Amino acid sequence: MLTSTQNPRIKHLLLLQQKSSQRKADGLFVVEGRREVEHCLTAGYTIRTAFVCEEIADASLSLPKGVEIVPVSRNVYERIAYRGGTEGIVAVVNTKKTTLADLRLSSSPLIVVLESVEKPGNLGAVLRSADAAGADAVIVCDPLTDLYNPNLIRSAVGALFTVPCVACSTEECIAFFKEKGIKILTAQLQDSHLYYDTPMTGPTAIVMGTEATGLTPQWRRAADAHIRIPMLGHLDSLNVSVSAAILLYEAVRQRQNVE
Amino acid sequence: MLTSTQNPRIKHLLLLQQKSSQRKADGLFVVEGRREVEHCLTAGYTIRTAFVCEEIADASLSLPKGVEIVPVSRNVYERIAYRGGTEGIVAVVNTKKTTLADLRLSSSPLIVVLESVEKPGNLGAVLRSADAAGADAVIVCDPLTDLYNPNLIRSAVGALFTVPCVACSTEECIAFFKEKGIKILTAQLQDSHLYYDTPMTGPTAIVMGTEATGLTPQWRRAADAHIRIPMLGHLDSLNVSVSAAILLYEAVRQRQNVE
Repeated sequence: MLTSTQNPRIKHLLLLQQKSSQRKADGLFVVEGRREVEHCLTAGYTIRTAFVCEEIADASLSLPKGVEIVPVSRNVYERIAYRGGTEGIVAVVNTKKTTLADLRLSSSPLIVVLESVEKPGNLGAVLRSADAAGADAVIVCDPLTDLYNPNLIRSAVGALFTVPCVACSTEECIAFFKEKGIKILTAQLQDSHLYYDTPMTGPTAIVMGTEATGLTPQWRRAADAHIRIPMLGHLDSLNVSVSAAILLYEAVRQRQNVE
Repeated sequence: MLTSTQNPRIKHLLLLQQKSSQRKADGLFVVEGRREVEHCLTAGYTIRTAFVCEEIADASLSLPKGVEIVPVSRNVYERIAYRGGTEGIVAVVNTKKTTLADLRLSSSPLIVVLESVEKPGNLGAVLRSADAAGADAVIVCDPLTDLYNPNLIRSAVGALFTVPCVACSTEECIAFFKEKGIKILTAQLQDSHLYYDTPMTGPTAIVMGTEATGLTPQWRRAADAHIRIPMLGHLDSLNVSVSAAILLYEAVRQRQNVE
């Protein structure tokens, strides 16, 4: 059992949590918690090492054969776990690159695109909403965060593993949509229609910019329609994950996509 | 100019940020940032003291006569400000109790009710969505947080001051809705209709429980309709502020409440 927070393997784990460059160099990232680990396995990721605090962990968690299980003491667990030791497992997992070509889309896909998203927590929250609305994919164009940031994984509560998520350039993404006949709806305030007056029953991509600067002209030009959420209060702003959920569920409503 | 973080006034300010009991005992709370302070003034709150770091603050911020302005050094400001000293003002403000009787409702009110909300950040995010959707009020029943928690104020980005917010008991709230003829729609999974098949054009209260335990039987019994958001993915959960926004904007859509 590892009992020292100074153990080189623990130090390496902490680096993977803290540094995007370390995740990229090693092709590894960190998943915490029983449910998340299960979703991660279901999605076909390969767990390299599971650090388990047996004092805390649920005995019923079964890991696939071949996964190295490293028991850790409670003090080590509390150092490596963000959520204060409630679930007893922190796993180091191989990253997996999904490309546009890998996406298996439904006959009338519903896709969310985020351009230049900066806050990992926002991207995670959008993934969670995309899962709930049954979206086919989330695409991040020219992201300023990596997909394996711990804040992202945390706020996605598993949705990084249930919703296909692709990072690519804006050019590639626009070309993909044009080729597949997917209508591009850009969320923007100027020159736009109310979102609920806009048809979303066909193949649809909802494209959103950052809260600060909005979308680039490239997306605005490529759009089949510009849509906006009416702002009826005093503040003129909604969180990007809230906006995404409102737009996605309007597509659900229009499609009467009942459970 | 105050230059020591050990100054008794600074220590008192920090207590107001940290302790709900201190806020309650003194009838004071803390607002940070220029925009928030402006919204707070517009809403008729009384600022007791403004701690201002002149090195950082925007010179154009004008405070009402009678507000005590206390200049503070940069190191003091960085201790009292959460957002890392970007705006230069932290104000101590008198709390103000709004009751159900104080609410001035429109002819067809749209109200959000949260029962036993625990996380201040969630309540703040719901206020932000309620502002955007032009809701008449947010009511918190039997809350487990106070309305002046700094995380709440932060995540509301000013909406605590633009949307009337009342704390009361579940009994009072139900009696108020029955008296005013406001339809109660409870968000729950069991025995419920899809939210977009439910009329929301008349006086409407959307009632939501905690993510963990849902609504109490009292609300379920008082409901005019039970509504649910379809969950089309794998995770069966949405953040409460996201759910609130989806339901509020369905009311907006039905009311065609254009900007």
